[in-house]
Amino acid sequence: MTRARFLGIDWGTTHRRAMLLGPDGELLDLRRDEEGSLACRGRFRAALQDLLRAWPAAGDAPVVMAGMVGSALGWQEVPYLDAALPLQRLAQHLVPVADAPAGARWFIVPGLCWRGAQGRADVMRGEETQLLGAAALGVGEGWIVLPGTHSKWVLLQRGAVAALRTCMTGELFAALRERGTLAPLMAEPSLDADADFDRGVQALGDEELGHALFGARARVVGAGAPAAGTAEYVSGLLMAAEWRDALRRGLPPGQPVRLLGEPALAARHARCARHFGCRTERLDPQAAQLAAWRAFHDHLSVLP
Amino acid sequence: MTRARFLGIDWGTTHRRAMLLGPDGELLDLRRDEEGSLACRGRFRAALQDLLRAWPAAGDAPVVMAGMVGSALGWQEVPYLDAALPLQRLAQHLVPVADAPAGARWFIVPGLCWRGAQGRADVMRGEETQLLGAAALGVGEGWIVLPGTHSKWVLLQRGAVAALRTCMTGELFAALRERGTLAPLMAEPSLDADADFDRGVQALGDEELGHALFGARARVVGAGAPAAGTAEYVSGLLMAAEWRDALRRGLPPGQPVRLLGEPALAARHARCARHFGCRTERLDPQAAQLAAWRAFHDHLSVLP
Repeated sequence: MTRARFLGIDWGTTHRRAMLLGPDGELLDLRRDEEGSLACRGRFRAALQDLLRAWPAAGDAPVVMAGMVGSALGWQEVPYLDAALPLQRLAQHLVPVADAPAGARWFIVPGLCWRGAQGRADVMRGEETQLLGAAALGVGEGWIVLPGTHSKWVLLQRGAVAALRTCMTGELFAALRERGTLAPLMAEPSLDADADFDRGVQALGDEELGHALFGARARVVGAGAPAAGTAEYVSGLLMAAEWRDALRRGLPPGQPVRLLGEPALAARHARCARHFGCRTERLDPQAAQLAAWRAFHDHLSVLP
Repeated sequence: MTRARFLGIDWGTTHRRAMLLGPDGELLDLRRDEEGSLACRGRFRAALQDLLRAWPAAGDAPVVMAGMVGSALGWQEVPYLDAALPLQRLAQHLVPVADAPAGARWFIVPGLCWRGAQGRADVMRGEETQLLGAAALGVGEGWIVLPGTHSKWVLLQRGAVAALRTCMTGELFAALRERGTLAPLMAEPSLDADADFDRGVQALGDEELGHALFGARARVVGAGAPAAGTAEYVSGLLMAAEWRDALRRGLPPGQPVRLLGEPALAARHARCARHFGCRTERLDPQAAQLAAWRAFHDHLSVLP
């Protein structure tokens, strides 16, 4: 058994994704479970110890954790860093876990807070680590979209976050699917997911989102469209609202937008982008995550 | 005890509001309970009979019901009428309840379906009755907003619905307050509800709604605003999106918009409208409802 030298955990709201790295920063093993921050409230330390016990190779390697684990609803609230910080310097700001056992080297990665004009602000936790990985892979300029519960639109300039816009796309989708007027329609399985998604993208047009969403019901009960595929249609509406917003704010259509996230969500974004005449390029989210953990591993390895 | 001649029930998704009318169309009594369509699924007949038993004055007066009671999720699905129908002719289209007891005169008011360009459609159930009442009170022209779970923007022309736009404002608000990222913040009571609401209205600006909503969190965790009043702030964002949309679609700012709904919601709309430089006038929702029941009462009274 190769002895691990580093354990990185992307500890989000609903999932926990861990990667174990060897002496040369090589990936030894990886695990994913549903022990997200919401599920672990009040028992983070035990949840980490359970993971370590089930993974003997981890030994006493340093542990670096990113994501909602560092929020007020997580294990230990870690203040945001200013988004102007070059991502490569994130490792210098790792925050030790206060209630770690004696001798344990457990750290949390701070999130970033971006401040715009007129007192506006936007925040991220976890994505800064993926962006560090992207930067380490050579992507330090241009727009990157990190889709998810909270979709993050990030403009990188010289390896730092120059602009940040969060859209609640995934959360709105989940809330609408769970209960309310659209929920019964969204439970009807789609017969052609791409076509239904495209219909939603096209239907947004210049409609206000709150009206377009009701349209997902009106088109069925009023205009006789089939209920099947309403979830995909709503997904199309929500995602189109993101792209419309980006273009309204000056996203240059010719410049490719990088997509950094789950393949299924990234594929939908690529589809939506084509509708708006935009080009996309996919970044491998696992490769970016691994590159970020390597950067932290390298930093911790050279410490005295 | 004056013997009632008419019972009108606004039977919505969550509430049931009943009005008992005398021989001259005068209001004898009124009741409101939480026996909405969702709560009464599968037992509408019993729910109506319970109401009648507790209300002896109702006797065997005809019963006219409007709202979600006539939807696919209600008692009996009643097809929508074309919105071009003059509201005054609604009474000619009352649909008898199929499983009414022998001799009982129970009817459901059909909703309206409005069809726009490019196959677009929008629908209402219940609001057509309130609009009939407004028309009977002399308001047969201009824009009327009926706020609620689904906010309805209606353009009346010559006593008929010439345009209809529904916004899911109330439903989105409820969904966000119930769970998810904003829910804990929205539970913090406001210290100055008007000021917090105004902040939300102003914060929308030209932002895409899905981004502006996340801003309700970012301003607290990122920019240090207090969490108190986040619910009012979100309410301001959502309502401002309605007004922004209406103005973008050509609502003439000089023309007063009538507000027909609960006083608290109507007051918020009036506040929001002022921010956009629009004038509003409030219609009394109970007076409109009563006027509509009178119109149905008059129609049924002259039947053989």
